[in-house]
Amino acid sequence: MKDLSAIFEPRSVAIVGASANPVKWGCIIPSNILMNSFDGGIYLINPKGEEILGMEVYKNIKDVPGEVDLAIIVRPSETCLSHIEECVDKGVKSIILLSGGFSEAGDGGTALENRIVDVVRGKNVPLVGPNTMGIYSAPVSLSALMPPVTPKKGPISFISQSGNIGTNILSFGGEMGLGFNKFVSCGNAADIDIADYLEYLDSDQKTKVVVLYMEGVRDGRKFMDVAKRVSLKKPIIAYKAGKTAKGVMAAASHTGALAGSSKVYQSAFKQCGITEASTVNEITDLARAFLYLPLPKGNKVGIVTWGGGYGVVATDACEDAGLEVPELDEEVLEALDKILPPYWSKGNPVDLVAMMEGVIEGKMPDILDILVKSDGIDAVIASGYILGGINPTNQKTEGFTTFYDEVNRNNVAKIIELMKKYEKPIIPVTTVADQRAVQRFSEEEIVIYSSLESTANILAKMFGRYKYLEW
Amino acid sequence: MKDLSAIFEPRSVAIVGASANPVKWGCIIPSNILMNSFDGGIYLINPKGEEILGMEVYKNIKDVPGEVDLAIIVRPSETCLSHIEECVDKGVKSIILLSGGFSEAGDGGTALENRIVDVVRGKNVPLVGPNTMGIYSAPVSLSALMPPVTPKKGPISFISQSGNIGTNILSFGGEMGLGFNKFVSCGNAADIDIADYLEYLDSDQKTKVVVLYMEGVRDGRKFMDVAKRVSLKKPIIAYKAGKTAKGVMAAASHTGALAGSSKVYQSAFKQCGITEASTVNEITDLARAFLYLPLPKGNKVGIVTWGGGYGVVATDACEDAGLEVPELDEEVLEALDKILPPYWSKGNPVDLVAMMEGVIEGKMPDILDILVKSDGIDAVIASGYILGGINPTNQKTEGFTTFYDEVNRNNVAKIIELMKKYEKPIIPVTTVADQRAVQRFSEEEIVIYSSLESTANILAKMFGRYKYLEW
Repeated sequence: MKDLSAIFEPRSVAIVGASANPVKWGCIIPSNILMNSFDGGIYLINPKGEEILGMEVYKNIKDVPGEVDLAIIVRPSETCLSHIEECVDKGVKSIILLSGGFSEAGDGGTALENRIVDVVRGKNVPLVGPNTMGIYSAPVSLSALMPPVTPKKGPISFISQSGNIGTNILSFGGEMGLGFNKFVSCGNAADIDIADYLEYLDSDQKTKVVVLYMEGVRDGRKFMDVAKRVSLKKPIIAYKAGKTAKGVMAAASHTGALAGSSKVYQSAFKQCGITEASTVNEITDLARAFLYLPLPKGNKVGIVTWGGGYGVVATDACEDAGLEVPELDEEVLEALDKILPPYWSKGNPVDLVAMMEGVIEGKMPDILDILVKSDGIDAVIASGYILGGINPTNQKTEGFTTFYDEVNRNNVAKIIELMKKYEKPIIPVTTVADQRAVQRFSEEEIVIYSSLESTANILAKMFGRYKYLEW
Repeated sequence: MKDLSAIFEPRSVAIVGASANPVKWGCIIPSNILMNSFDGGIYLINPKGEEILGMEVYKNIKDVPGEVDLAIIVRPSETCLSHIEECVDKGVKSIILLSGGFSEAGDGGTALENRIVDVVRGKNVPLVGPNTMGIYSAPVSLSALMPPVTPKKGPISFISQSGNIGTNILSFGGEMGLGFNKFVSCGNAADIDIADYLEYLDSDQKTKVVVLYMEGVRDGRKFMDVAKRVSLKKPIIAYKAGKTAKGVMAAASHTGALAGSSKVYQSAFKQCGITEASTVNEITDLARAFLYLPLPKGNKVGIVTWGGGYGVVATDACEDAGLEVPELDEEVLEALDKILPPYWSKGNPVDLVAMMEGVIEGKMPDILDILVKSDGIDAVIASGYILGGINPTNQKTEGFTTFYDEVNRNNVAKIIELMKKYEKPIIPVTTVADQRAVQRFSEEEIVIYSSLESTANILAKMFGRYKYLEW
């Protein structure tokens, strides 16, 4: 197992190729590190010396007075071998090679990449990349990334073969309440591959959920062995890009990855207990679900809906995802009869039939309670339970908005309470395309989606993980 | 053909069952009508008389001094027959029966519904509903709806068998720049069915795109005949709910609709030139696409991507949707060679390889121009062309945000110009789950999505419409 602690918890960082030009990565990278208040020392290296960002510049990494745990190289590919030799001579403990122009760029690049790997492996200096956008690490507040991203801190760690997709999820995930612990854009993965990162995260106490964006791995057996071990402890969510023939070609020119057949990967994921995300946006939906929801112990879904149309859509979505929308037990029907108006749907989905009075009297949580405690129900989808429906640009509805917000806060608290009590997942779904509630409650231990189809798919995948672990 | 003008362009409206209690529909409905500044007269009816919302109340509709074009009934189902008889006697020209408790509630309700239909058909008074959430009409600013929705005005008309899904799309569509002309929640469609509304919209000059949320129709032949005629003039987008066996049952208890097999509907849609939305959220995506994009005349997609990962995902998404990601012509490659750095991907997808300088120098529109004018390309997906990637909660990046916004405004204007010039669709896609750019440019004649998978599906469906019209 490779020791990657110098990469993810360095006490000092050096930037080889530092620049005063604000559109050069040599300036942007140290700016990002400074902006995010890295906990350790920072050294800038440029043969011209002088000052950059108000800091002293060293002409060569060998001139740095103290120890360097992590060197980040942002120089053109043809000069990188000599920089890496200098780093190794200096005793640098780990390297991130951000530069592109290696195996992803053709045969000449591959030869250069192989020489670099020989140098760092000879001295046991782990190397991230090349062709990477960098790393993030919450414990030391290190944002050594190309884009100016300030991730929210939390328990998700993320290994990405795409720098852009990775850093975008890192950036926007925070708005959905997703906090990150470690992130790496693994680039061409010349020295450290996905399995190595996964193995490191396995023993990382701060990582509770692992997310992978992957195009392909070179050593499938090693990847599967590690993944099988990790997935018994922590959920692993993977999105596999390069699924179609043309997609495989695109992946080859992107990271030089052997993308391989999507069926082979799908079957491998299943064997390893990896949960596959079907779309890029499902990556974050799944991460949040695994963080905050208990796993469903069966596939029977109770649906509560404020409006029959959503009930029909939710039912279709569940059935399409392989979930069941069962009849309700007699005692459940009787209990609901006491709360709902006489003309209610008397079945699953439970239609709240535009029950304004019920909302005002706070009856919605009682309905959830009756459903979720039934032995015949393993999970609940609550469509319209989080009230939206008010156009916020309409100033005249301000009173409604304040009232709705209070109802929503109470209802969200009640869902969290019910999930703890009955250990079953309850997912409220907002109205069409309305993401406000998602952001409004992003700090709560609850999952809110804005698509019924996505919700059903997520529940089916969570049940898949339950089966993998228990059966 | 039924004359529905008294419903959609009434000069006066009466609310039968008006109430001073702010949680009753009898109060909410007239409040919504007043709030949205209806262009005609409003009469409130309640046997107690007195005043409601500062307005005079008539004890019976027969006491109203002037003519009533549209009566809206919000009384319990068992009293509705006599109210309708009174309306007909008064000479009311059309009726909306909001009340539930009819055919959707069982045999007793069906009998009552049939008697009501007999009464209104006897006098040629068209009736919306029962079990409806009402209607909206932009030309007279009439928002006779249960939820307090103020739709944005525009050229989309929408027939919905679900009141909640309909009014939610009406409400949130505005934030995506979607403007509506006529909306009807058709409820049980006892008198006027979907085909009747569709026929009315056919000759409505203000309607450019028709959207349907449907659970089922009673007279399939009539529906298909009308739809075939309309779809040659205007795009029809339909979402069919009640696709699975359990979904069909849920639809029956919702609107009493005969949902029927989803395969039958799919094939009917295809024959009629109706574009089917696969998810609820795709309804609005398609509506915007048909409003603002030229139809692609072939299935060959050029992909521009800022980051190779998105290029791989976009390629997979296109191939999965039945689109082609072709090799680029020699002259396209040569033209791009002059703009892009020497290590660019030299193929489709065109990876802008983290080209910060290119962004600053405004080169991105030039790259689009080269692609879109090529004979080998029918449509362009531009991933990352709309710059996001900056977490707005991070105050330190304000300078970047302002700069990015200016770049985005220029680039959006350039796309609109290129689409007009070459008559090919160009769709920019934002980074993962970032909807800000969608809202930022919602008033422009452009379509921005936040999912590459959705984008590919939409393009494939637009090409489907092109084939239907041209082949």
